[in-house]
This record gives sequence, structure tokens and C-alpha cells, in this order.
Amino acid sequence: MALGSFIQVLPDSHFSIQNLPYGAFKAHPTAPARLATAIGDYVVDLSEIAKAGLFNGPILAASDCFLQPTLNNFLALGRPAWKEARATLQKLLSSTEPTLRDNADLRQKSLVPMSKVEMVIPMEIGDYTDFYSSMHHAKNCGTIFRGPQNAIPQNWFHLPIAYHGRASSIVISGTNINRPRGQGYPTGQSPPYFGPSLKLDFELEMAAVVGPGNELGKAIDVNEATDHIFGLVLMNDWSARDIQAWEYVPLGPFLGKSFGTTISPWIVTLDALEPFACDAPKQDPHPLPYLAEKISKNYDIELEVQIKPSGQTDSCVVTRSNFKNLYWTVTQQVAHHTINGCNLRPGDLLGTGTLSGPEFESFGCLLELTWNGQKSLPLNGTTRKFLEDGDEVTFSGCCKGDGYNVGFGTCAGKIVPPRD
Amino acid sequence: MALGSFIQVLPDSHFSIQNLPYGAFKAHPTAPARLATAIGDYVVDLSEIAKAGLFNGPILAASDCFLQPTLNNFLALGRPAWKEARATLQKLLSSTEPTLRDNADLRQKSLVPMSKVEMVIPMEIGDYTDFYSSMHHAKNCGTIFRGPQNAIPQNWFHLPIAYHGRASSIVISGTNINRPRGQGYPTGQSPPYFGPSLKLDFELEMAAVVGPGNELGKAIDVNEATDHIFGLVLMNDWSARDIQAWEYVPLGPFLGKSFGTTISPWIVTLDALEPFACDAPKQDPHPLPYLAEKISKNYDIELEVQIKPSGQTDSCVVTRSNFKNLYWTVTQQVAHHTINGCNLRPGDLLGTGTLSGPEFESFGCLLELTWNGQKSLPLNGTTRKFLEDGDEVTFSGCCKGDGYNVGFGTCAGKIVPPRD
Repeated sequence: MALGSFIQVLPDSHFSIQNLPYGAFKAHPTAPARLATAIGDYVVDLSEIAKAGLFNGPILAASDCFLQPTLNNFLALGRPAWKEARATLQKLLSSTEPTLRDNADLRQKSLVPMSKVEMVIPMEIGDYTDFYSSMHHAKNCGTIFRGPQNAIPQNWFHLPIAYHGRASSIVISGTNINRPRGQGYPTGQSPPYFGPSLKLDFELEMAAVVGPGNELGKAIDVNEATDHIFGLVLMNDWSARDIQAWEYVPLGPFLGKSFGTTISPWIVTLDALEPFACDAPKQDPHPLPYLAEKISKNYDIELEVQIKPSGQTDSCVVTRSNFKNLYWTVTQQVAHHTINGCNLRPGDLLGTGTLSGPEFESFGCLLELTWNGQKSLPLNGTTRKFLEDGDEVTFSGCCKGDGYNVGFGTCAGKIVPPRD
Repeated sequence: MALGSFIQVLPDSHFSIQNLPYGAFKAHPTAPARLATAIGDYVVDLSEIAKAGLFNGPILAASDCFLQPTLNNFLALGRPAWKEARATLQKLLSSTEPTLRDNADLRQKSLVPMSKVEMVIPMEIGDYTDFYSSMHHAKNCGTIFRGPQNAIPQNWFHLPIAYHGRASSIVISGTNINRPRGQGYPTGQSPPYFGPSLKLDFELEMAAVVGPGNELGKAIDVNEATDHIFGLVLMNDWSARDIQAWEYVPLGPFLGKSFGTTISPWIVTLDALEPFACDAPKQDPHPLPYLAEKISKNYDIELEVQIKPSGQTDSCVVTRSNFKNLYWTVTQQVAHHTINGCNLRPGDLLGTGTLSGPEFESFGCLLELTWNGQKSLPLNGTTRKFLEDGDEVTFSGCCKGDGYNVGFGTCAGKIVPPRD
């Protein structure tokens, strides 16, 4: 029988005692942020657990990392501290352990119903990088923009292509997204289009949260890269396809992406994901030595995107994919990112790129699902080519264990008109 | 006669009482950073000036912004606070004002010889963006990589093209730069090149430091953009041309740029640069309304690049350019950056892109000066196609006034071999 908690965890809950993700919450809008884990329908206030002296292992007993408003200090401590915290929390929340279970005062202080709190971004994100690591997505986008002959550029199979993203506009799940204004391709001899984006899209991604990171000038070995990845979040890399198409030559995406990127509030740790590890795709050609890893791992994380169209009450599933569709692993991404000496810092975010699968039903964005607006996607009796104002897009992600889930909750955002 | 200070300012000094740039220093390596201005050969410790109660204007009297280790709080206060601080410091340092001049104790505390301090980056840089706004640079790069027929892409004259850069690897002048390792184009059927970059380059840029910035979703009007720019620094956007050429399709520069970006320690304010304002180039086609500004301003800042080749003692001037070679103004860059709702934050850095002039002698990087290594650049009896280990590159920038300078000092870095 699976490990159980004295706190009720319903069978479909994402937040079992096997999960214990990390996040940050505010008990009321003006309160300072506090770090937390999740179990069942509760957040567990880690500052209260710390103040009660219950992080009493050799590394964390002397640390004030759980009294901070962000996880950055905890992230910097590295995997031994992460494992210690996980062991402490798993014991503390288990059904057989009386310390918290039988302490009404501490339960009262530390357990808060999820429905009563506002989740906030749990780390300072110094830099955000977005990769382009699903082969199916690269192939589809390349076919749409450059034709089937040159769909995937020559470099794609040799290195995990990426661009620097915008950190300032990363927002927490639930934040409305203003439709961006911008320029699009001119028609004939006219000036470029200018106005609200007419091709607003979601991108189904996940992102890795960086742990200790590296000193400037010193690369991270691909076989040690896992020690620099704390965990994963769901991420919606909202994209304005018309803005992007006009601006991106020759320096890449800029305003087509930087108006908003939504992440899920809970970071699920690699330690919690370990039971769901699976082989990464075989890579051909064989990668260069600095990218060749002894164990090449993905995770079996089921992903789903729902859209609730403007004015409707029901959501409609538009795609189902899986994290394991990643061609370049997150450890290869870390090794590549640092091979030139670039330094990663605790809290940096590394997006996977759109996680499209091989079949139409698993394509990870509307660009692919409607083939750049050439066809319509049926949606609860209406249709979409791209997102309309009022549309609400919700990602979910979950690993299904034997009698328990290790899930990410949701990553949601609603499109609203541009501001004046 | 120009305004004078009781502190000696030699005629060729960059740091006249008309300048008063902002920076941060450490009195010794383990000391906390303190904010400063510069005059002659001295840094003025602003924390001591603040503690003495001398920032006594209506805005700054109640602020602790000069007791912080970074300028971010001061930057957030906006232009009225910046003007107040400038007026206070200009008065305090003038030859006719006894407050500091005749207070030996305060002089002793607040004036530190520049040669005795270590300068550090004076702000937290949340995001760094790099534009591509010199037409001559765009034309030269385009000709080298895509031929003279398609040198400048169609979008270039309609919008200030930019990409997100890497904030973590921005370093202060004087920091050594490790030659990056990375992949380059394969030859024939071989795997890609892998090893130390063989085409390491400097890029002569300047960068704007953002002031208050904007809320996510709310664009900054081009005619108000100047209130969001605190000042300028010199910037060397070191570039590995071989890494960049292989990786940049389709998402733009990544590891070819992210191994290091050097900035000068002193931020010269727009208020100090105002006497050197000049008309920006006429733009044809006329920009879209959101980029059309009532007054389109550049600044006449003379720029110079010297290289001291490895093993030599003398530097050699390799190019002379000017900030006024910018086609898209920094205010247009701010308006464009935010038109989609993207938020700028205090301390963000906006690079201009390489500031090449029209003539060969004013080209802003070795890519242009050696036409991608097709010819050699003479250098103190030796030659260069790209940078070699041990080469030291020093930028300087200065506005020449009537009897005084408003200068940026230098922005320097030496190339050292990759680390193991």
C-alpha cells in the first residue's frame, strides 16, 4: 500500500504525499509571501514548520531558507538539502507520525486551505531561456514557414536551439493576459499592419527551475547537470504569431513572446518525478561528447490543454501531449547552455519549447492545430483559428502512480483586450 | 567660464562637475557596495553624503535610496528625484560652496581616490535587451552573411529589431573574458566544429539604463519615453561569430553572445548629456505613429576602441565612431519594447547594437573591420582577424564641452583561455 498522510488526499488530487511540490502563497493580498508545499487541498506553510524547529536535519537546521519570501536560497543549497527537506516533510505529513498530526496549534498555524490563499511566483527569476526541443514542433513550424523540404534546420539535430526570453513578464497562473499590440507583415506596398495581434496563440511547455547553477566561465558537465535542476513547472509561452513572423529575422522572437508567460504555482521536484522517469528518444546523429550523457532521461508526464471559449461555461480539451516528447533532455539543455561559460543562477527558468507529440491530437499550439489558421479547430460548438478575447486556456500535467498522483495542478490564463 | 569644483579636475578628465555620473564601489574586496558619483580622480561616497543629511531636497530627504548597495530604488524614483540629486551634488561640489569644501571630516569620509576602489555593477539588471539600431552595422553584417542584394531585411526600417540578451553574464569593466567553447558549422559531411571559438569579436555599443519603467500591459508613449531612461553606459557585447553563425537560425543569437557582456562602471545621466543632444537621422520610410516622436534626439558622444595585443605594452586605436550613428533612438527603442505591453523595470539595460559609422574607420567590430576575417587588420606591427588570447580591448566615450568633458571613462576586458 502506498505511503499515506493524515491529511485527506482524494484519489484524483495532484498533491499526494509522494509529490510535495514547492510554491509560495499570500494569506491575504497585502501579506508577505511565504513558502509552502501542497498536500491534498491544503498548503503547508513552511515558515511555520521551520519556526517550530522541525527542519532539524544536518543541513537545514542552521538555515533560514524557509523564512524567506522566495525559494532562491533553498535552490542554491542543492540536492542534499532538497532531499533532506523532502524526507522531513514526508515523515511529518505521514499518517503514522504524531508531531504535526497531534499538535492542534501547529496544524492551525501551518495548514491553510488552498482555496483561501493567493499563490505567487515562488522565486526570483534572474534569466529565462526558452528551448525548441520537441522535434515534432520544430518539424511542424518549419513546414508551415519554410516548406517540407527545409522544415528542420541543419543545426537542430546537433544542438538544443534556444533563445533568451523575457523574465519581467513571467506571471503566475490565473493572471489575465492583455492581447498585445504590434506590427505585422505589410500587404503589398502598404506600411506594416499595426494593431492588436490577430494570431494570438498558446504554447504548451514545461520549464525547469535551476538549482545551484555555475560560476561564469565554468561549464556544467552533462552527467552532473541533474544536480542543477530542482524541478519542473507547467508553462504557457503565449505567442503572437503575426508579430513574431514579421520581427524575428534575423535576431529571433522578441515582442511576439514578451507580453506574458504563465507558469504554474507549484514546482514539482525531480525527486518526486523520479518514479516516472523513462528513456529519452534515441538521438541520431549521436550528439557531440559534451552533450552525450550516460543516462538520457525523460519523464512520463501527461499533459492536457483545455480552452473555455469566451461566453461559455464549459472547457473543451484541445490537445493531449506528454513531457516525454522532448528530444533534447533538460540535462542536455543545461550542459549546452553553459558550454560557453554562461552562468546559470538559482531560480533561472529553462523552458522546453512547445511539447508537441507526433499526432495531430497532440500538437502543442494553435499554429500547429490550425496549420497557421488555414483550418478551424472545433470548440464546444464554435471554432477557433487563434485565441479570442475572453478565451481561457488551462494546462494541466500529471504523473499517474499506483494509487496516487504526482501532479502539477493547472496553469491558466484568460485573454483580455489590450489596455489603453 | 564654466562651473568649477573645489576638487581638482584636470582638463582631460572625463569627470567634470558637469558630468556627475553614478556608479558603485567597494572600498576593499569584502566591503559592501556603496553608491557614488565621480569627480576628477575621486569617487564621492553618496552614502556618506546622505548620512550627513545633505540630500535635503523635497524628494530625497525622506528616501534611503543612497544607503542601498544598488541604484534600483533611486532609478525607480524618476526624473524629478534625479534632477534634485544632480542639483544637490553640483552645488555641494562647486568651488563656491563651503559645506563639503570646508568640512575636513566629511571630505575624509566621502572622497575616496578612484585608484583605491574597486568598481562594481551599480544596479540589479532584471532583463537585458540588445537592439540592432545602426544602419551601417546592419548593412555590413547583412552584406557579409546574405549578400549585398538582401543586406538589410525588409522589417529593419519599420521597427528597431532587438533580441533578449543574457543578464547573468554582464560584468564590470576590467573583468577577464574566458574565450567561449562551442559548436561551429560542420565542414562537408563532418560533425560540427567543437572547441574554443575561432572568431571572437568585440562589439562597440552603448546601453541605456531604465528608470521607473512600466506596468505589464501598459505601453510607454514615445514622447514620454525619455522619462524612463536614466542614463547611458559603454558596453562591449563580446561575440563569438562562429558559434553565432551556426546557432542563430531560426531563434537568434544565444551562446555566441551569452558568455560575457562588459559595461563601464559609470552611468552618465541624460541630464548631463543634454548639452550634447543633436538631431537623430531622418527616417525614411516615416515610422508608424507609435514610433513617430515630436523631437528625435541623439547625443554627440565620441567613441573609440583600442586593442592592446597580447604581449605588447601599447594600445592601438582600431576604430572611432559616435553614438549619433544610431538610426532608431533610445526613446523609440523604449516605445517599441513596450508597445506589446512588455514591462520594463528599474535597472533594465537596453543595448544599442553595434555603433558603426559609414566609413571603414568607424566600423564597430572586427567582423566588419576584417570583413569576417577575409582581410587582416594591422595592429602595432602585428595583425588580427579576430581576437587572440591576451588581447585587451578598451572602449572610451566622451562628450567634449567648452572647457570640460562629460565622459564615460573606459570599458575594458582581456581575453583569456577557456577554463577547464
